[in-house]
Amino acid sequence: MKKACIISIGNELLNGQTVDTNANWLCRELLTLGIPTEGVWVVGDTLERIVLCLQQASELADVILITGGLGPTDDDLTRQALAQFLAVELEFKPELFEELQAFFKARQIAMAPINRVQAFIPAGARAIPNKKGTAAGIYAKKGQKEYFSVPGVPSEMKGMYQADIGPLLRQSHNGPIVLTRKVRCFGAGESTIAQMLGDMMKRGQNPLLNCTVSGGDITLHCVAQADTFQQAEQMISVQKRQISTLLGSLVYSTEDKSLPEVLGEKLKNAKKTLATAESCTGGLLGKMITDVSGSSQYYMGGWVTYSNGAKIRDLGVPTQLIDQYGAVSEPVARALAAGASQKAGSDAAIAITGIAGPEGGNEQKPVGLVYIAVQLDGDVLVREFRFPPQTRETVRQRAALSAINMLRIKLGIE
Amino acid sequence: MKKACIISIGNELLNGQTVDTNANWLCRELLTLGIPTEGVWVVGDTLERIVLCLQQASELADVILITGGLGPTDDDLTRQALAQFLAVELEFKPELFEELQAFFKARQIAMAPINRVQAFIPAGARAIPNKKGTAAGIYAKKGQKEYFSVPGVPSEMKGMYQADIGPLLRQSHNGPIVLTRKVRCFGAGESTIAQMLGDMMKRGQNPLLNCTVSGGDITLHCVAQADTFQQAEQMISVQKRQISTLLGSLVYSTEDKSLPEVLGEKLKNAKKTLATAESCTGGLLGKMITDVSGSSQYYMGGWVTYSNGAKIRDLGVPTQLIDQYGAVSEPVARALAAGASQKAGSDAAIAITGIAGPEGGNEQKPVGLVYIAVQLDGDVLVREFRFPPQTRETVRQRAALSAINMLRIKLGIE
Repeated sequence: MKKACIISIGNELLNGQTVDTNANWLCRELLTLGIPTEGVWVVGDTLERIVLCLQQASELADVILITGGLGPTDDDLTRQALAQFLAVELEFKPELFEELQAFFKARQIAMAPINRVQAFIPAGARAIPNKKGTAAGIYAKKGQKEYFSVPGVPSEMKGMYQADIGPLLRQSHNGPIVLTRKVRCFGAGESTIAQMLGDMMKRGQNPLLNCTVSGGDITLHCVAQADTFQQAEQMISVQKRQISTLLGSLVYSTEDKSLPEVLGEKLKNAKKTLATAESCTGGLLGKMITDVSGSSQYYMGGWVTYSNGAKIRDLGVPTQLIDQYGAVSEPVARALAAGASQKAGSDAAIAITGIAGPEGGNEQKPVGLVYIAVQLDGDVLVREFRFPPQTRETVRQRAALSAINMLRIKLGIE
Repeated sequence: MKKACIISIGNELLNGQTVDTNANWLCRELLTLGIPTEGVWVVGDTLERIVLCLQQASELADVILITGGLGPTDDDLTRQALAQFLAVELEFKPELFEELQAFFKARQIAMAPINRVQAFIPAGARAIPNKKGTAAGIYAKKGQKEYFSVPGVPSEMKGMYQADIGPLLRQSHNGPIVLTRKVRCFGAGESTIAQMLGDMMKRGQNPLLNCTVSGGDITLHCVAQADTFQQAEQMISVQKRQISTLLGSLVYSTEDKSLPEVLGEKLKNAKKTLATAESCTGGLLGKMITDVSGSSQYYMGGWVTYSNGAKIRDLGVPTQLIDQYGAVSEPVARALAAGASQKAGSDAAIAITGIAGPEGGNEQKPVGLVYIAVQLDGDVLVREFRFPPQTRETVRQRAALSAINMLRIKLGIE
C-alpha cells in the first residue's frame, strides 16, 4: 500500500499569517484513493530546509506532494530545491514560456521579466498545467518515489490535483480503495448519537465511522476500504441505510447537503413560502437561508426585530405580552412567528428570540436561553432551548440551525 | 536567538478530519517573543514516528512545542514517546492524580479508570497545569533544549501557553523582542494600498510591514524587532501614525477592532440609532452589526426584503420604481434606506440591493452588481459597486462590509 507525505512551503505558514489548509484537503483526497498520509512538514522558504524535508519525506513515503514556493520572486525556491534534491539542472521549457505569455496576453497584462523563471523545471521532470495561474507544477520520479509540486494558492492547487495528480495516482493505484462519504445529523449531541449507533462507532472496523462536530451540526464520516470503487460505494450505501434507521429524523442529509439546502428543497417540493422574524440572531437566520442560491423561490423575507419597538410596530406583538413575559419568552416567540407569516403572507414562518450574551442574562433568563417558534399552515410549535453559553457566536449559530431544523422536521421526513 | 519547532500529533490531522490551527497560533505567539518557528511536523499517533520527530526537531530548534496525544486512551502516545526520547521512565505523580480526582468531583462525574494514566509524566519532567481539561502538560529539558507538551484541544492548549509556557519563555528570553500589531483598512485593494504605502512595504526593514486580505478587509501587520517591549511598542506607534497619514480614511482601526465594532462605537458616541434594509445579503448585514455585544444600544432592527412584495409592502418602495429601474437599482436602494429609517424612526439607515449570484445576472446587471444606500439624518448617499463575481459568499461579504464602511465614513473620521 502506497503512503504519502506532504510538504507545505512558505514563510507565511510559519509566522502565523496563514493557516495551512492545503495539507488537510490533500490528506482527505489521498485517503479516498487509499493512500494514507504519514506526515506533513511545514517549512519556510529556505533552500536547504526544503531539500532536507524532501529527503526525510522520501524515507517515509512513496508519494510526496509539495505545495508552495513556485512563484516568480526570489523567495520562491521549490523549483531549485527539487532540482538539487533530484541532482539535476533546471531546464528552460519553451512551451511553458509560450503558455506564460499567452496567460498574460489573455488578461491584457504585460508579463514582468521575473516571470520567465516559471518556465524552468528540473531536467527530466514534467510540467503540470495550471489553468488558474502562472505557476506550472512539477511532476518528477526518483526511483519508485513520485514527487508532485504545486502552487500554494488553494484554488490552483485543487484544480491541478483534480485535473492531473489525482487521476494519475488513481491510475497507478494498486492498493485498496478508501472511500469517504458524509452523513449529516442535527438535534442531538455527539455522545447521544454515538450511543444510538452503538457498535458501528467501534474502531478497527470496515467501514469505519468517524464523527466531527461543528456548532451542534454533526457529520458522520463513513470510511470504506475495498478492492474496487463499486464495492466501497456498496458498503457505504449499506452503512448509510443502517445509520438512517438508527438515527431516524436526526439525519438530515446523506448527500453532504447543508441544513439550509435541505430546508430549501423541502419548501420547494411542498410549494411553501417562508418568512422569518429574528431577535437575538440579528439576521443570521435569514443569511443562512439565503446562503442557498435560488432561495428567492421560497423565502419572501424577514424582520430583524432587535428592539421591542420593532417587535410591536412591525410584527404586531402585543405590548402587554412583552411587559408580562419579557421579550425572551414563549408567547413572544409565538407572536413573532404569527406576525411574520401574516405580514408576509407566507405559508411558513420561523421566529427566534433569546439571549446571546455575553451580557443581558440573569438567573431566571440566563445567556443561552432561546425560544424558537415555527409555524406552518397556521399550526405553531414553540420550543425552549438552553444552549451552552460559550460565546455569542456559538449561541447564535446553534439557535439559527435549531430553528431551521425544527421547520425541516415540521415539513415531514420522507 | 532561540528557534522553535512545533510537532502536532493526531491521526485526525492526517486523515483530513481536522485542520491544525494550533501550530499557526503558536507560531504567531512565539514570534511575539522573538522566537521564529523553523518548522512544523504533523504526525499520527504512532510511537516511533513521534520519537523520530522529536529527534529531528531537536536538531533544528531550541524550543520544541508538542500538541496532542495526551488523552487517556490507547492511541494517545505523546507521554510514552517523550519518555522514550528522553530515555527515562514514566513516573506516577500522586499530586496529579489528586487533581484529576478533584476535576471529576467538581463536575460530579465518576472518573474512569483509564484516566489514571494522565497522572504519569516522564521522570525529571514537570507537569504543566491544565485548568480546562484532564490532560496535564509536560515540561522537560534535555541539555539546553526545552520541550513543552500540551493537549491538542485549542482552548486547553492556549490557556496553558498563556498561563505557563509563554511567561516561562519570556523570562528566559535573551534575544530581541518581536512585537506584532495590526492596522485594519477597508475601501481599496491590496495593490493600491501597497502603492500608497510605498517604501514602507519593502522587505528586510525593521519595523516590517506585512499585508493579509480577507473579503476586501485588509490587515497590515506591523512587525517590530527591538531590545525591549517599550522600544518595539514605540517603533510600532510611529509606524501606525505614518500609515494613518498615508492611508487616511482607509484605516478604520489601529487597535484590531472589526468594522462592525468601529461602526458601533461611532454610533454610540454620536448617539445615533440605526436600521437596515437588506435584499441580496439576506440578513448578513444585520448579523454583522449584531455580532457586537451591546449593539442593541444603537441597532433598532431591520428588514430582509428579499422579495419585491416585501420591498413594496414593508418599506413603501413605490411599485413603479421597481418596474421602471428594477429591484437592483440606485433609486430602489435609496427608497429602501428612506423606508427603513422612516419606519424604524432611526437616525441612520443602510440599504443593500444587488445580485449575489451565481444565478440572476445578465449583461446589463451582472452578478456582483450591488447598490448600497446610506442615510444619516435625512441625508442619503448611494453608491454602485461591481464586486468580483467569485462566489455568492464573497459578493455578499463584500457588500455588507462596504455598507458598514460607508456609514462609518459618513459618521466622520476623527
